[in-house]
Amino acid sequence: MQAYFRALQSRLCEELATLDGKRKFRLDAWDRPGGGGGHTATIADGAVFEKGGVNWSAVWGEFDDAALARLGPGDRRFFATGCSLVLHARNPFVPTVHANFRYLERGEDSWFGGGCDLTPTYPDLDDARHFHEAWKRACDRHDPSYYERFKRWCDEYFYLPHRGETRGIGGIFFDDLRGDRDRLAAFVKECADTIVPAYAPIAQRHRDDPFGEKESRFQALRRGRYVEFNLLYDRGTAFGLATHGRAESILMSLPPLARWEYGWQPEPGSREARALALFQPRDWLRADVAGRTSS
Amino acid sequence: MQAYFRALQSRLCEELATLDGKRKFRLDAWDRPGGGGGHTATIADGAVFEKGGVNWSAVWGEFDDAALARLGPGDRRFFATGCSLVLHARNPFVPTVHANFRYLERGEDSWFGGGCDLTPTYPDLDDARHFHEAWKRACDRHDPSYYERFKRWCDEYFYLPHRGETRGIGGIFFDDLRGDRDRLAAFVKECADTIVPAYAPIAQRHRDDPFGEKESRFQALRRGRYVEFNLLYDRGTAFGLATHGRAESILMSLPPLARWEYGWQPEPGSREARALALFQPRDWLRADVAGRTSS
Repeated sequence: MQAYFRALQSRLCEELATLDGKRKFRLDAWDRPGGGGGHTATIADGAVFEKGGVNWSAVWGEFDDAALARLGPGDRRFFATGCSLVLHARNPFVPTVHANFRYLERGEDSWFGGGCDLTPTYPDLDDARHFHEAWKRACDRHDPSYYERFKRWCDEYFYLPHRGETRGIGGIFFDDLRGDRDRLAAFVKECADTIVPAYAPIAQRHRDDPFGEKESRFQALRRGRYVEFNLLYDRGTAFGLATHGRAESILMSLPPLARWEYGWQPEPGSREARALALFQPRDWLRADVAGRTSS
Repeated sequence: MQAYFRALQSRLCEELATLDGKRKFRLDAWDRPGGGGGHTATIADGAVFEKGGVNWSAVWGEFDDAALARLGPGDRRFFATGCSLVLHARNPFVPTVHANFRYLERGEDSWFGGGCDLTPTYPDLDDARHFHEAWKRACDRHDPSYYERFKRWCDEYFYLPHRGETRGIGGIFFDDLRGDRDRLAAFVKECADTIVPAYAPIAQRHRDDPFGEKESRFQALRRGRYVEFNLLYDRGTAFGLATHGRAESILMSLPPLARWEYGWQPEPGSREARALALFQPRDWLRADVAGRTSS
């Protein structure tokens, strides 16, 4: 899996740089003092991507007391490898995409985790259906129960209770996936192969959409919510920082610019008001096209 | 204390609006479903203050299980009142200031907490000495041990372990202050009276300092660190959100705009590099003027 995820990172960087058309990814190789290391590849000021990164890492060693306190008692020996990406686009009509697939071992136990989800500034129902259809197809090839379970898990995980809203329009999320390692690895590889076809057509469709100050401002406010989720609730971020992970690689997920205004509310009936109403768990495969917000 | 903190909020809003000269504070009154409520006063787009707020609240009731899990077992009945402020200035040479003073009861137990600290983008040693001298004077009038203890506590509390740096140049911070209630209330009131004289001369001195794109960009990057601290580590923010506090009042502390760049490093020898080197616990009363960064 370690070699697979490393090759996946290279492939994703190539495909995403091709999509961007202007910038390539820059690679930082780093070592982890306790064992292992990783490659952090980042892009900035591209034609499509304002800020983004693709991480690969393979780390091993023994959990210290801080990690044990978070994970609960058990074997201290661990191995973890995975590939994750977050891409923030310049155009407010191109969604932010996040994906993360990983393989973990603790003592004799091993499992997979991962997922991919979309965070538009202005959710578009056609885009949302395309994205969810791609994940349903990938899931259905492996287990008929996966899409429904992992879609719901994603809605529950990427939720901001203090705002009463989801981070975006979801996708799939799973953890603690145990069983036949070859079969699960095949599923995770299918997921990894789904990232670009699920996302790239959406980015292509909107990369040249006209926008102005108003849309960029709303984008920055929504990015504030993205920051709130990642720093307040994301378990990977909290665990990574608590266990002295490489801060720049962990916080690679943060947007280039985020805005906060006290008590901000959209104008009633505005496109921003319609967008906000969509940040709730929703069956995007059955979404009514009449509710679309980007037209 | 409830009436005192409410009057303090009004007084601070008046004095800070006078300092700003362009905008006044707008008051939002809110009720807390479980008991009590508060007033959130905010300012935006002022001559000095880009975004800021002064909160007053007095809340009571019974801790629910989520609160008990965070606080540890004990009496469920509580009462809390306090006044807090955070002001983010437009000019990168005017520091962000934060203050928070509170009185709490749980069952028969009661205590005070609070503090005031300064977060400059570019620490200035003269400003830092002025600020710390004001807090030392206020502390020394009540207990000769307070300043040293509370200054160190502040450095320890406002620290970002994943960055290896302090949030700003500190000030004082204390919690669980128990004893003669009248004497402690007198100390807290002296602290409250110290906020404006400790801060206003610094804001006045730098409100018209020339700055450009480079300084605003560094300010936004530093504000990213401010966001990281408040969302990752601030216990008041975590407790407030976990116990269903009013999100807009709790997150009033966040800056108007924050920036993240992967692996950002200042140019060696630049003013930004000299500024970064100062975000470490330091005896600002003895600070060597030769190290100043704003000239």
